[in-house]
This record gives sequence, structure tokens and C-alpha cells, in this order.
Amino acid sequence: MCGIVGYTGVHEASPVLVAGLRRLEYRGYDSAGVAIVSDGRVVVRKRAGRVRILEEALDKEPAVGHCGISHTRWATHGPANDRNAHPHVGGKGGAVSVAVVHNGVIENHSALRAELTADGFLFLSQTDTEVIAHLIARELGDGDGLFQAVQRALPQLEGTYGLAVISPRCPGQVVGARLGSPLVVGLGEGEHFLASDALAIAPHTAKVAYLQDGEVVRLGPDDFEIRHRERGSITPRIDRIDWKPDAVELGGHAHYMLKEIREQPETIHDACRGRFRRAEATAQFGGLNMTPRQLRRVRRIVFAACGTSWHAAMVGEYLIERLAHLPVEVEYASEFRYRNAPLDDRTLVFVLSQSGETADTLGALRESKRQGHPTLAIVNTVGSTIAREATGGIFLHCGPEVGVASTKAFTAQVAVLTLLAIHLGRLRHLSFTDGLAAIEAVEAIPQALGEVLAKIEPAILKAAQRLAQTKSVLYLGRDLHFPVALEGALKLKEISYIHAEGYPTAEMKHGPIALVDRETPCVFVAPRGALHAKTLSNVEEVRARHGTIISVGTEGDESLEAISDIFLPIPDVPEIVQPLLAVVPLQLLAYHVALLRGCDIDKPRNLAKSVTVE
Amino acid sequence: MCGIVGYTGVHEASPVLVAGLRRLEYRGYDSAGVAIVSDGRVVVRKRAGRVRILEEALDKEPAVGHCGISHTRWATHGPANDRNAHPHVGGKGGAVSVAVVHNGVIENHSALRAELTADGFLFLSQTDTEVIAHLIARELGDGDGLFQAVQRALPQLEGTYGLAVISPRCPGQVVGARLGSPLVVGLGEGEHFLASDALAIAPHTAKVAYLQDGEVVRLGPDDFEIRHRERGSITPRIDRIDWKPDAVELGGHAHYMLKEIREQPETIHDACRGRFRRAEATAQFGGLNMTPRQLRRVRRIVFAACGTSWHAAMVGEYLIERLAHLPVEVEYASEFRYRNAPLDDRTLVFVLSQSGETADTLGALRESKRQGHPTLAIVNTVGSTIAREATGGIFLHCGPEVGVASTKAFTAQVAVLTLLAIHLGRLRHLSFTDGLAAIEAVEAIPQALGEVLAKIEPAILKAAQRLAQTKSVLYLGRDLHFPVALEGALKLKEISYIHAEGYPTAEMKHGPIALVDRETPCVFVAPRGALHAKTLSNVEEVRARHGTIISVGTEGDESLEAISDIFLPIPDVPEIVQPLLAVVPLQLLAYHVALLRGCDIDKPRNLAKSVTVE
Repeated sequence: MCGIVGYTGVHEASPVLVAGLRRLEYRGYDSAGVAIVSDGRVVVRKRAGRVRILEEALDKEPAVGHCGISHTRWATHGPANDRNAHPHVGGKGGAVSVAVVHNGVIENHSALRAELTADGFLFLSQTDTEVIAHLIARELGDGDGLFQAVQRALPQLEGTYGLAVISPRCPGQVVGARLGSPLVVGLGEGEHFLASDALAIAPHTAKVAYLQDGEVVRLGPDDFEIRHRERGSITPRIDRIDWKPDAVELGGHAHYMLKEIREQPETIHDACRGRFRRAEATAQFGGLNMTPRQLRRVRRIVFAACGTSWHAAMVGEYLIERLAHLPVEVEYASEFRYRNAPLDDRTLVFVLSQSGETADTLGALRESKRQGHPTLAIVNTVGSTIAREATGGIFLHCGPEVGVASTKAFTAQVAVLTLLAIHLGRLRHLSFTDGLAAIEAVEAIPQALGEVLAKIEPAILKAAQRLAQTKSVLYLGRDLHFPVALEGALKLKEISYIHAEGYPTAEMKHGPIALVDRETPCVFVAPRGALHAKTLSNVEEVRARHGTIISVGTEGDESLEAISDIFLPIPDVPEIVQPLLAVVPLQLLAYHVALLRGCDIDKPRNLAKSVTVE
Repeated sequence: MCGIVGYTGVHEASPVLVAGLRRLEYRGYDSAGVAIVSDGRVVVRKRAGRVRILEEALDKEPAVGHCGISHTRWATHGPANDRNAHPHVGGKGGAVSVAVVHNGVIENHSALRAELTADGFLFLSQTDTEVIAHLIARELGDGDGLFQAVQRALPQLEGTYGLAVISPRCPGQVVGARLGSPLVVGLGEGEHFLASDALAIAPHTAKVAYLQDGEVVRLGPDDFEIRHRERGSITPRIDRIDWKPDAVELGGHAHYMLKEIREQPETIHDACRGRFRRAEATAQFGGLNMTPRQLRRVRRIVFAACGTSWHAAMVGEYLIERLAHLPVEVEYASEFRYRNAPLDDRTLVFVLSQSGETADTLGALRESKRQGHPTLAIVNTVGSTIAREATGGIFLHCGPEVGVASTKAFTAQVAVLTLLAIHLGRLRHLSFTDGLAAIEAVEAIPQALGEVLAKIEPAILKAAQRLAQTKSVLYLGRDLHFPVALEGALKLKEISYIHAEGYPTAEMKHGPIALVDRETPCVFVAPRGALHAKTLSNVEEVRARHGTIISVGTEGDESLEAISDIFLPIPDVPEIVQPLLAVVPLQLLAYHVALLRGCDIDKPRNLAKSVTVE
């Protein structure tokens, strides 16, 4: 959610920290700040708004020193202003004895604030984080070092955190702590890094150690140590980052989102690579860690996810129910983790998360594991918390996704879910012939999608002009295209701030159609299929009420084109792979609408790339 | 959806028909019309707009005669103008040989239109109905009567219909036909009625005969006959309407919706009456037609429904999963009926529909029955198609619901689903103590709701003023209150045309929060419960972005009240019955917002009370 970067080493800290924040800015950009240990004092610079504004402030008033922490914020408590920006400082009577940056949410902050106020600590902000700063300051007292003080303060907190802390009393030291919010240590020569995401430190080093929940770390320029709050001293496992730092460069595209939309023929191909098993007309996965016999015993599948991943899971539901005749339920991770949903010993749980750090999804994974269920993960980021804690799973292999509005991760998820449906189907009723046809349909997608991307932009621009001035849009799809409609609506909502909502096409009549008038367009996702005649009737119902109609349909479908104001054609492919093509015009549509409205596409307001708080 | 009334008898037809249309107007009100057989001719009067406009036209130019048909339309094909209004007439060269009114959708209308045009028939409208009129006219030719002509025409139609037809060639005859769209015959003295809903004829007679799919009826003043297209002549079953005609009067309230909101303490009581079994700490249902042994064998429940009923079913899902530990899946009926969802022989299917005539829900019922599953119905209207075709079920007993935006049917559904969850729970793990506590919690609701209704209006008015000028609102709730949030959003959408959308509270961060700014308020449904601290954090996230906050919470919850702009308190009751109270302020809020915006509350644009087309 928010981004954290810490540094201690031979170089000036401030430029390293700011460059790191820039790489994390897509995580949260309500405000940004740094704190540097400088000549026995802590110098804090922080500003509401983007990292750029912080940089300008630092140009005017530099913060000099070799050890510091920094933060880019997605506001949870208190509005996004200078005062609520991180770092927050702790100490009594104007003396600054610690500075803290924090991801996560402290649930008992009110009680602690009252206690610390009674104790004489003065609060300057409305954040829950300032409580942590004073708490550590109180523990630091006149006693031992910062590392010990942090370890004494943590048990008093209820909630989640990823923390980085410095103190003028311990120059050259950065202390970090993790509970529910990711942190990674970067190992350099004569320098160490701490970050909420390996992206921030990738230009400096590929050697990293991921912290686990309950761990606290002390970094010096030349060494570091990790302790777990129950298990004591920990020998860290050193991992290597497996992608190049330039994977997150724009490479000539105007925005990350556009770059990632255009990468999809390639990323779908990458997601499927090595997973086709043509000789047996099925798909295979290396990491499920379940035998065919165990998979055959499964009677029900539950997917838990949030946002775009939840939509991908719904496509998975339709596909698995269709190809494998296994009942599937898709749950919002935030609901699933607390509501004690009935799962028996023949239920298989999957969680889906691009980042592998989504707090609610991680919560769902842990709840399901706690109950003793095998819990698999469909994740993009290797080394992420969810990837490490799942009993098995499927990686998306689509490279780092930087655009806040997820695009290539969605199609990669849908692609691997299609293969999973084939795999499960071929363990049960699906014939060799049908399995092979399904495999071949997936194999043909990257090329078909390339054709869509090459041709569709002019029609998209026309459609975008129709949508750019509206307040409200309905997205409608049936069957496999219902989740595509939901996803298309979410894209528009996220980056253009137009209120778009997805519905199953036929459900429109049960309420939402009240919104339809000349000012409310409808987007129909309606490639040709068994229920096409019924969808055409629904389109007529909207036309009868003068709503503008934009439709995604099969090339050459004249009956749909004739009743649409704007027709966005995709190639004629089998139904089960249509979602992989149909969603892409909707991604582009959202992109171009946001562009016309002058929105900040890669940094939409209020949003952050990966939601690591509940 | 649309309304049909037909009459033949001793009285003037036109006043009977118009009075009937007025009673059905909540079903559709895009346009209205009558056709009367008058001196060997058919006189047609039809107008876009309300029944009132048709009445004015009839005052100026009366249509005199004792036999006629009439219609109030909800447009499916072609905009709502005079020309597309029903009745439509059929015949060649300007001669009118039949007049037809029609509910439903004809799917092969394009092909038939081409064929009839080639045959020399001239089309005046864009409707699918005109095809039926010409088709019957062609069959009528010079041959036998209207009854036979209709029976020859019907097999040529693909789609659904409820039809009423007259012809100057057969004065005194009304012919009706049903496939997928309800029709009921009313039996009077020297007069007969035909209607799409018994409401229209209740003031004239309580003796009715419901038509079945595939049946055709011929009415004369003194007799009627019914034939089934495969089974030939049918002996009709005569039913009696079990409610008084004045149950659908306004009774001093400004709108049906307000009347029905205020009736809820009573209707919840009626829905539960006779269903408590305190001695065994459980609930009982007379009509499930399943033994405890059969119910114990059930391993999974599927609910299929549309609109508000779908939301009630979701509350049912949470309750049954919580109290009976049985996995429940809620499906959109329109999706379920076509997507071949996997159901095994231990899956129990329920369908939910207030009217018992919802086309998609009826389709889901039939699909599930076709597959041999016991299929139960939760329905309000006794005698409705779904009630008759289900293998068993639960009636809501909350009286006719006239407001297009469903209110009392929702709470009645939730009340019986709560009892069903207790019943299923007590067949399994739920203890006597917990069962009794649950029963008592339900019993206490009518009084608690009475208190809410007595006190809450001033706060609602303040909240309505905040919402009346907005374009867009988010409704947020966790767990049992997520469906309540969905339902609250749907109410606002339906009657005020403000784009409101419901989300699980924690899901907000995964996209929808992009919409939040000073202009986009959030409504939190947040009575006190286990996850209250987390919800308070979510409220803070919205406050940090300057969104207005309206919250429904527990009386005396100062922490929620302090961070809300407007606080709508409900009494402190156990979690499982909170939805029954929490939804009511949201119904009232939608009502008052619509009132402030000058919307036509009981006849919202584009909507119809019961959706009898797909």
C-alpha cells in the first residue's frame, strides 16, 4: 500500500531513498517524506502530494547523512497533508529521539494515544503511526539501543505493520519490523537496504532476504541481524531477484498501463509456456504439490481474492464448472477470512493475488491453512508472502506489473485458470478431443490478441469520446463475460473516476436499467455464443430507452453491429477463450477515457497498487 | 412486466379495462392502450405515457362496446411512443381483422416480419407484437373462428407470450394464450375477465382460473373454454383469491413504497406467524414437503433469484452457513438457468421471487426440476406460476406488494430465511440454547423495528438532503451487512436514478475508493459486531479522502457516530437479525432522496414490478 525505503551505507542516503520512493510511488502517493540521521540529529522533510514535490523541497533544503528512512503514503488515518505525512517523530518536550515510517493499521491507537498523552507525549498528527514513534521513544528512554527498544514496543501494538525506524542515538542503524506488511532487506557492499518491495532496491542489488511476520531486523552498513519475537535469533535465507530492474521501465510507452496492455500477447504466452501437454490433451503445473489422485478427490473449489483477481477467479469458476463439472465458489478474501465459511475435507482453496502481498488475501490463505486445508496460490510475484506461505500454486510469470489498474496480470490469471480447468477436466469427464480443442484454443490466443491490438485503436478512440463526458456507465455480460463486464467497469472506475458498474446482462431489468437514459451508456460484452439472441433482446431494451450502446462482439456479427452505436470487434474464437480477448478492448477503453479526461493514469487518486492493509 | 386486461360481458368494456390497467400500472407504464369491438369494427385508442393520458383520450373520444382488451407496456422492442404502444392490429390493406396485446418477447420476430412483409402485410411499429397480430390475421383468413386461428398461429412463434386477442369477426369473444407469461381468467356473472395479474380483476370477482403454459382460452360473456396445445380440452381448476381488493389501496400513505416500508413490523410478524416452535427451539415450515431425514442428507444449497430477492438470498447464505454449516451458493437466476452449474444429488435448490412470475427465476426452477433436483420456492404470491410448479416451499404472507422498489418482500424473505437457517441448524449442530436465542431474536424484531420507524425519520431527512444532489454513492457493509449494502444501493438506484453501488466494506480499497471525493458520499452499514474495529478503520480511510459519511449503526455507538456526518441508529440486537433492522433506514433514505428529487416513486422510469420477460 504505502511504500517504505531505508538505507544505511557509504553513500548519501537521501538520493538513494528518493530514487527508491519513485520506484514505489505507484504504491501510494498521497504524501512522501524522508528522515535522515545527520550530525546527531534527525532531519525530517515531508510533503503532501507526489515524490516530485518532496524532491523539490530537498533540493532547496538538503538532508545530509548516510542513514535514513523514507515513505510514500496511502492515507488510512487522517487526510493527506504535510502533517500526516510520514516519517513521524517520537520523543518528549520537543526532543526527537526516533523517526518512524509505517505501513499497516494500528487498531488500538486510540487507547495508546490516551495513555501516551497522559504520560506527557505531545501528538502533532492524526495518524496511528505517531503512536508507534512515541511508544518506541518511551522504551528507548536512557537505556540500551534502538533494536531493543523496538522489540519492547512491538508487543504493545495491536494491528499490522511494516516499520522502519532510526534514532540519532544509534547513528548508522536502521531497524525494521514486520507483522502483516511486507519488508525485504537488500544486501550490498558496505551498505544495506530495507524496503516494502524489492522493486525499490533492484537497481542496487539482486541479493535480498525477505522478512517473515514477527521478525525484527537491525541493519548497519556492514552487517545485519534478524530476530523473531518468539524464536530469537534467525539465520536469514538469501534469495536472488529473478527479473531485471529495467522490467519496470516505461520503454517508450506513455504509461505503464498502456505498456502492460500491449504486452499481453507476450505475457499470456509466458503464463502458458511449458504448461501444455499436447500428447495427453491436457495442461500441467509444476508447483501444485498435489497428485492426480489427490486432485480427483476434490469435490468443491473455493477461490478467495480481491478486486481484479476476484474477477479473474469468477472466470475460473465458470470455466472449471463447465470443463470439470466441479462446483466452485468465489469469495471476497476480506469476507472469507472472517466468516467461517463451511469447508469440508474435500474442498480445495485457492487464493489469487498479483502482488502476493494483498493483506486480505493473505488473511484468507492463513485462515484456510489454520483449518488444515491444502491452500494453493495463484500469484505473480515470486518470493512474495503468499507465494511462500501457500502449500503450492501457480506463478503467472508475466513480469512486474506497475500500472495500478491491473491488466496483464488479469489475462495471465485467466490464462492459467483456463489451463487449470482443462487439467481438472481431463482428470474427470473431459475427453481427449475436447481437451485438445481447448488447449489449441488457448495456444491461438496470443496471435489473435495481437490482431486485436493492431486494429482496434481507432474504434476505441471513438468509443472513448462517447464515454469521456458521462457520469455513469453500465457494463453488461452473460456467462463467462459477466466477470469480463465487471472487470471492464472496474478499470473505468479506477482510472477515470466515472461510476461504472458491471451486471449480468439479464439482471439489468431487475433494477439497474432505471439508470439508463440518453446520458448513461451501456457497454455490452457480447461475442457470439449460445445465448446471443437473448443478449440482442437486452440490447433492444436499452435502445428503447435511448441509451448509447457500445458493444464488444465477434467480427462480422452484423446483427449486433446494426444495433450498436460503436462496435468493437474481436476474432471468432471458441467461447472458453473469449474472455482473454474481450477484456482487452475494455482495458484500452478505460485507458483512453482517462487520457481524454486528463486523469493521472498510472497513479489514480486514492488507490495503491497492492493493498497491504485490511 | 407489462399488464394485460381483457373483458367480455354485460357492462361497457372500456371503464372496466381502464380501471384494471390502473391497478396494474406499476407493472409497466411506458404506454397504455385499449381495443374495443364496436359495431363490427375494432376501435383502438393508445398513448405513450401513463394510463391517465389514455383516460383523457378516451374521455374525448370514447370507445363504446362490451368486449375489449387493454395493455400497459414496459418497452422491450422499440421506444415508448404512440405507435409502439399496444394493442397492435393485424390485417391486410387497411382492414383490421384482429387486435392483440402481448407480454413477453418473440425471438424470431425478424424472420416472421420478413415473411409477412413479403406476403403483403404492412408494419406500422417496431414491436415484435405486430408480427403476432398479422400472423393471426393471416390464419383467420376467411375460415373458422378466432380461437382456431390463434391456435394455428402460436406454433409459428419462438419466444414467450401472454396474449389477449379480439376480432370484429367474433364479437363478444376474447381469446388468450400463455407461454411463459402469466394469465388468469376471472369468472363473473354474465361476464368474464382475462388479466396478467389477479390484482386487476379482484374488485369484480374472487373466482379465478390460472392458465398454464401451452394453454389457450376462449372467453364469452357466459362461458369459457381452455385447450392445451398438446393435451386438448382442459377442465379448469377454479381458485379463490385469498386477499381483499383493498390490500392494494394506498390507505392514506403518499406512496405504496412508503406504505409498504411502514407495514414491515406487521409483515415480518406475518411472515413468521405459526413458524416458531419454542418447545424444540426451532422453526417449522408446513410446505417444504421434505422430511427431516431428507433435509439432513443435503450437503449444499443453491439459491437462484434476481434483484432484491438475490440480495435476500445472500443474507440467507451467510445465515445458513453460520447457523447450519452448510455451504450455500447464490446464483443470478438468469445465469444459473443456462450455464449448467454442477449440482449433485445432495444439492438442494431454492428459487426466490416475490411475484412468483419472474421469468428468469421460473427458468431456473424449471431447469433444476428438469435435472431431477427437488426445487423449493420462496414466494409471496399464492397461485403464481413458481408457487405452483415448485416441489415445495415457503410463502411470505406479506400481502400484495405494489411499490416497484421491493421493501416488505425483502424483509419477509430475510425473516423466513433466518427461520430456515435455524431449522437447518437445529437438524445439525445448533444447540437448543443457541436455537432458542435465535428464535427469540427474530420474535423481538417487529417491536424493535417499530421503534426504528417511530424515531428515525428526522435523521433520514438530513441524510437525504446530503444525497439528493450527488451523482454517485457507495454503500458498504461487511458479512451479513454486505447484502444489506447491495440492497440499499439498489433502492436508491431504482427510484432516484443516482448511481449507487454496494461493496463489501474491505473491498472498497481494491478499486471503488477511486470514486470517493467531496462529491461522492459513502453509506456504511455498520452495526456493532466482531469486526467493528476494522470497519472503523475503513471509515477513516474514506474520511481521509473527504468523503461524506452516512452510517447505520448501533444506538450508543459513539466511536462510529463521532466519525460519521450523519448517524442512523438502530437498536442493539443480535448479529443474525441485524439485517432486518439495518435495511429499513436505507429504504427510507432512498424514498426521501427520490422525493426530494421529484421522482415518480411508485413508477420509476424503465422499471416494472415483476419481470416476466428474460
